Amino acid sequence: MPSRPSPFGKSRLSEFRLIKTLCRRFGQTGPRVLCGIGDDTAVVRPNAGGSLLLTTDLLAEGIHFRRDTATFEDIGYRAAVANLSDIAAMGGTPQYMLVALAIPPNCTGTNIEQLYKGLMKASRPHGVELVGGDTSASAQGLFITITMTGHAARERVLTRSSARVGDLIFVTGTLGDSLAGLQLLLNDRGAAGVAPRDRIYLVGRHRRPTPRVVEGRILARHGLATAAIDLSDGLSGDLAHVCEQSGVGAEIHTAALPLSSACLAYASAQALDPIDLALQGGEDYELLFTVSPRKQARVERLARRVDCRWSCIGVIRPESFGLRLRRPDGTLRRLQITSYQHFGNQGPSDREAACSH
Amino acid sequence: MPSRPSPFGKSRLSEFRLIKTLCRRFGQTGPRVLCGIGDDTAVVRPNAGGSLLLTTDLLAEGIHFRRDTATFEDIGYRAAVANLSDIAAMGGTPQYMLVALAIPPNCTGTNIEQLYKGLMKASRPHGVELVGGDTSASAQGLFITITMTGHAARERVLTRSSARVGDLIFVTGTLGDSLAGLQLLLNDRGAAGVAPRDRIYLVGRHRRPTPRVVEGRILARHGLATAAIDLSDGLSGDLAHVCEQSGVGAEIHTAALPLSSACLAYASAQALDPIDLALQGGEDYELLFTVSPRKQARVERLARRVDCRWSCIGVIRPESFGLRLRRPDGTLRRLQITSYQHFGNQGPSDREAACSH
Repeated sequence: MPSRPSPFGKSRLSEFRLIKTLCRRFGQTGPRVLCGIGDDTAVVRPNAGGSLLLTTDLLAEGIHFRRDTATFEDIGYRAAVANLSDIAAMGGTPQYMLVALAIPPNCTGTNIEQLYKGLMKASRPHGVELVGGDTSASAQGLFITITMTGHAARERVLTRSSARVGDLIFVTGTLGDSLAGLQLLLNDRGAAGVAPRDRIYLVGRHRRPTPRVVEGRILARHGLATAAIDLSDGLSGDLAHVCEQSGVGAEIHTAALPLSSACLAYASAQALDPIDLALQGGEDYELLFTVSPRKQARVERLARRVDCRWSCIGVIRPESFGLRLRRPDGTLRRLQITSYQHFGNQGPSDREAACSH
Repeated sequence: MPSRPSPFGKSRLSEFRLIKTLCRRFGQTGPRVLCGIGDDTAVVRPNAGGSLLLTTDLLAEGIHFRRDTATFEDIGYRAAVANLSDIAAMGGTPQYMLVALAIPPNCTGTNIEQLYKGLMKASRPHGVELVGGDTSASAQGLFITITMTGHAARERVLTRSSARVGDLIFVTGTLGDSLAGLQLLLNDRGAAGVAPRDRIYLVGRHRRPTPRVVEGRILARHGLATAAIDLSDGLSGDLAHVCEQSGVGAEIHTAALPLSSACLAYASAQALDPIDLALQGGEDYELLFTVSPRKQARVERLARRVDCRWSCIGVIRPESFGLRLRRPDGTLRRLQITSYQHFGNQGPSDREAACSH
């Protein structure tokens, strides 16, 4: 029998101490949590009425993150955002978090504390409480599974399956920034011709994306969106999910895709088409949502109340139309559906690296 | 950039197909599930009143399971039982399950279907519905994180922290069977002198343990137990959790430890002390609970209604007493606190392989 690797080097009792430290530092909970970290299960008081939202995301080292492009705090931050963004895409309010870690021998207790620091930095502003988890050794590679719960009013949940022909397609924020930031991190020469403030902005968008929790809740509360999804996988892949599940097609206007000045500067310096960054870049964690045209004016009024822009980028078409791009010259071309590959080859139909379901 | 390994060999689209198959085969849900597999989050209708229970367990290949001692169906079965048992230990009713998998290149789609088959075989009889999950590639080793929710009446949750001095200590079923079964699987020579039916029984107890959901619910509903925990980590380690969290000590009567005839036969053939198997063997998934002495008669009446025996194995003592064993000759000795090491060295203070919190 092979000897099990110790995740904490020589000190065999240090994990117990670490969990006590994590619990003391991050496990403070309010009166709705009847039992937090330390029992067989967490016990919480559910919200009266409404719906309970449940989501889980697994992040694997070398697939979703690498230690040379992110600190442990960044890794934790992004792991929390992946889940917060799922709750945001349903129009919900995030509530409780459970953290399961498989820890390889080359991670220290300090690394894990930093990871939790990032998790809490991203999720505490949204009122999320850490209520439980599990830790295990891993022979190789750090694996992080976050489970998050949320709540939403019963009839106000935003799903992927109810976009209708004629609906306008909106996105929050700007697209492609996270991919540009990652490329800058992976290829230092890529920074040539990119101003330091643009580099800082793009790398920040990759390392510390903003989950659009407030925006999702506004859309749900005002009954404005017919469908919604968060852009974790890239615009083309995530739009394809909405279209497939709603039984519709879509036309995207390339000229309307929201691009940051930093992303434009990066694309220009690299001789890349910024539209490709916007269509294929993943992990922007913006929301894509569809709106009936008669609600357009109301959506645009509300957009002025939030601190990120909302852009109308196209329109829902019948299923037979497929997914197409309308270029500024009026011509149409088929939208290549790609799924974002964090650290693998990026290409069409490359859809199996990570699949939330 | 290294190329990401494909979890499904040559076929890059086969994971998407697999998820559709899994969803069709195992994702059927009832009217309380407003949105199951396939959206950003699951949406369920919470129970009115009562408490929501949340638990997550991570199982890592080589740490918690090995492919040479269990089929994929067994691995799935035990992964579900680990979570069902946590809900049982709180006196709750299990409800919803999310499954996150990191899949290495040497796993096939059929392997994963078998894993889900085991998951559902263990959890469907308890009314659990599969509502979501996540899949990812893994460079090496299969990692399974199951999240399960449950519900319980508000004032009826069984925690670890409320055992009182003088309470009697009970366990369900028999102890040590799972460890004996695992040892038989790991060492074929160990089967010498063990009757085939005993071998089948012990291996079955290891591969397909029974979560004591019904028993936990009866204890909670009738307000019988002061504290409870499930025996995943072994009697000595799990009793230590209850004592630590309740601020008490405990005296265990070795003559009262419930042992199956198969476990006794195995210990005799191997010249092992069966008491050690009972104290140190993990993954029996029996419940340990404490009861006020004035409720002893009621507990024993109720025990006759369930299909597993309940045994009184000791008594809660003051904290200063520590944890001790009383031997048949009346002498006391300190209880060695061990934590079950699935495939590593087993010894005192070896507590970091897996730690639910």
